[in-house]
Amino acid sequence: MRIVVAGGDGFCGWPTALHLSNQGHEVTIVDNLSRRKWDEELHSNSVTPIASLEERVGKWKELTGKEIKTYIGDLNHYDFLREVFRQTEPEAFVHFAEQRSAPYSMIDREHAVFTQQNNVLGNLNVLYAIKEFAPECHLIKLGTMGEYGTPNIDIEEGYIEIEHKGRKDVMPYPKQPGSFYHLSKVHDSHNIMFACKIWGIRATDLNQGIVYGLHTNETKMDPMLVNRVDYDGVFGTALNRFLIQAATGHDLTVYGSGNQTRAFLNIEDTVRCVEIAAENPADKGEFRVFNQFTEYFSVQELAEKVQKVAKEEGLNTEVSHLDNPRIEAEEHYYHAVNTKLRDLGLEPHLLTDDVLHDILQTVIEHKDRVIKENILPSIKWK
Amino acid sequence: MRIVVAGGDGFCGWPTALHLSNQGHEVTIVDNLSRRKWDEELHSNSVTPIASLEERVGKWKELTGKEIKTYIGDLNHYDFLREVFRQTEPEAFVHFAEQRSAPYSMIDREHAVFTQQNNVLGNLNVLYAIKEFAPECHLIKLGTMGEYGTPNIDIEEGYIEIEHKGRKDVMPYPKQPGSFYHLSKVHDSHNIMFACKIWGIRATDLNQGIVYGLHTNETKMDPMLVNRVDYDGVFGTALNRFLIQAATGHDLTVYGSGNQTRAFLNIEDTVRCVEIAAENPADKGEFRVFNQFTEYFSVQELAEKVQKVAKEEGLNTEVSHLDNPRIEAEEHYYHAVNTKLRDLGLEPHLLTDDVLHDILQTVIEHKDRVIKENILPSIKWK
Repeated sequence: MRIVVAGGDGFCGWPTALHLSNQGHEVTIVDNLSRRKWDEELHSNSVTPIASLEERVGKWKELTGKEIKTYIGDLNHYDFLREVFRQTEPEAFVHFAEQRSAPYSMIDREHAVFTQQNNVLGNLNVLYAIKEFAPECHLIKLGTMGEYGTPNIDIEEGYIEIEHKGRKDVMPYPKQPGSFYHLSKVHDSHNIMFACKIWGIRATDLNQGIVYGLHTNETKMDPMLVNRVDYDGVFGTALNRFLIQAATGHDLTVYGSGNQTRAFLNIEDTVRCVEIAAENPADKGEFRVFNQFTEYFSVQELAEKVQKVAKEEGLNTEVSHLDNPRIEAEEHYYHAVNTKLRDLGLEPHLLTDDVLHDILQTVIEHKDRVIKENILPSIKWK
Repeated sequence: MRIVVAGGDGFCGWPTALHLSNQGHEVTIVDNLSRRKWDEELHSNSVTPIASLEERVGKWKELTGKEIKTYIGDLNHYDFLREVFRQTEPEAFVHFAEQRSAPYSMIDREHAVFTQQNNVLGNLNVLYAIKEFAPECHLIKLGTMGEYGTPNIDIEEGYIEIEHKGRKDVMPYPKQPGSFYHLSKVHDSHNIMFACKIWGIRATDLNQGIVYGLHTNETKMDPMLVNRVDYDGVFGTALNRFLIQAATGHDLTVYGSGNQTRAFLNIEDTVRCVEIAAENPADKGEFRVFNQFTEYFSVQELAEKVQKVAKEEGLNTEVSHLDNPRIEAEEHYYHAVNTKLRDLGLEPHLLTDDVLHDILQTVIEHKDRVIKENILPSIKWK
């Protein structure tokens, strides 16, 4: 299948591009390299030393004989996007190419506006490009479980049947996102749903949990293929951040009570979920929503898991509680449905101690690269 | 009260600014005059000849002694918006300043992107300006009943209690808007709800129905204060368009079956609703939603009402059915709640034959200004 992976230089996009290429798909990466620029802006880095995109795809070709074409440019430049569509004629367009950090979107007005402009308008361009140049192309769009917030009822996969005053309807599941970034994904979801309805576009919205891990079968093949790992207060997600804190002798910094519960999955499942979505496309006009996670944990539970595994590696680390920089419920109900991807064949990698040891060992190997002053949260929601 | 009316040169904004000024409020209009520019872009016009904003506020001062200050600029220019907030110190910010036409947003990609950029990012700027410069200021934001779409259950005012798998929560009412314009308002609503939660902003979202009429007590005071009336396929809303079609010997063009039911209100109620919202501000941190309409009708019913009244004025006109240029349900349930504004004192002007005669007579007076080739819909959703 001809698949474009937009955002294919990023943490989820790169291993996904490799995985799809390895499965025999004809993969093209589209990326504006902005994730690397944000590192420069924030004086931050990946714990793992990552090669340039050119080096990465060169090494992949050398190892496997498989070519991944690259287009360096921005989805917000429609002239560029048009050429991508004309030249690649995609059958699936995997859209990771958005600003994906909640704290980054909350830095200030400029970053909030940038995030919504970049994400929402870029995605609008993708919808128009599919309509104009590849109407059969299946849009596989990365959403987030954070779109739902933490309602006091079960979270369903995109839709919910509501009975009200003696009548019934199946409605889009109400969204209560917790940052301008998460809001941008909610806006995307609404825009895509409408485009499916009026233009018959086929789309799958992957409401992804928080991703942990770094290696996949493909990124392990050579050091030049290694994935990035973020640990800083802006782009580092909870579990990876805890592991790096443990490796560098830093307290594991839980925000607030730590009873916030979130959905998680391993990067190995991310790449498999995208493959499953691509191989089982949505129908014409269908806006399909999958909740893409395998387990959920409270942040406190995660910190304690990491603490235990770190201790087994000879690292003594404390769990400390910081004032929560975010405005969010710290005590809440959380129960989310995630059966659709499993019904299509996902076999989850669960968060075992072995998995944690494996990530921790990689992180320890590179711990000298950690810029310690980047670890603590510097961005407040208030 | 110090009130900024953003979009105060437009169809709803102008009479609202006059009404609030007449009630003794200290009113400032902020407008980038874009509604007039879109007329130029579309080679269109208002049936009523409208004076420049400068002439309008000059005449108002001459007649009443009341001054309405004006700032000409764009909410998307934050330097400008900052100065508006610093200089006016608003206690209420009435936000009409968005691109408000569904067909305009559906012209092509550029117009869709423009609409969402202009509306969503402009509104984000307003939220930041309130947070930074006037945290007590009450945001009165114009939304639309079109945010809800046509669900098969009753439409509530912004929120709905959902019982699901034995648990309950009050959730944001699910939105199913029908154009990129309507989507922009849904995005706004989500952004505002979040800003209220994290920054304690007080906001009222007025989900307004389709507005008809043109005169208010204030605009009737002098021909130079007259309100604009749109009739073209892009900016003309259903009832006003039918009246102008009747006046100019054009068929009343119903899209599709005409069984689409929509919520309506008179412009005289628009100005009163905004006044009610301003005088009863939302609490700090409250995101309050009012459904701002007084009645609902099917499009076919409206056309027949106009046909009857036109006949009484000696105008014979036919109701004709066009292929629907929009993608929308033509047969659907529609029942929407609108008690909150009435509980606060709104006394609706209902759509009587007298009201229709009154508008029709004004339109007849200016019918030579109608550019006939603009009447039919030229923009398709497909």
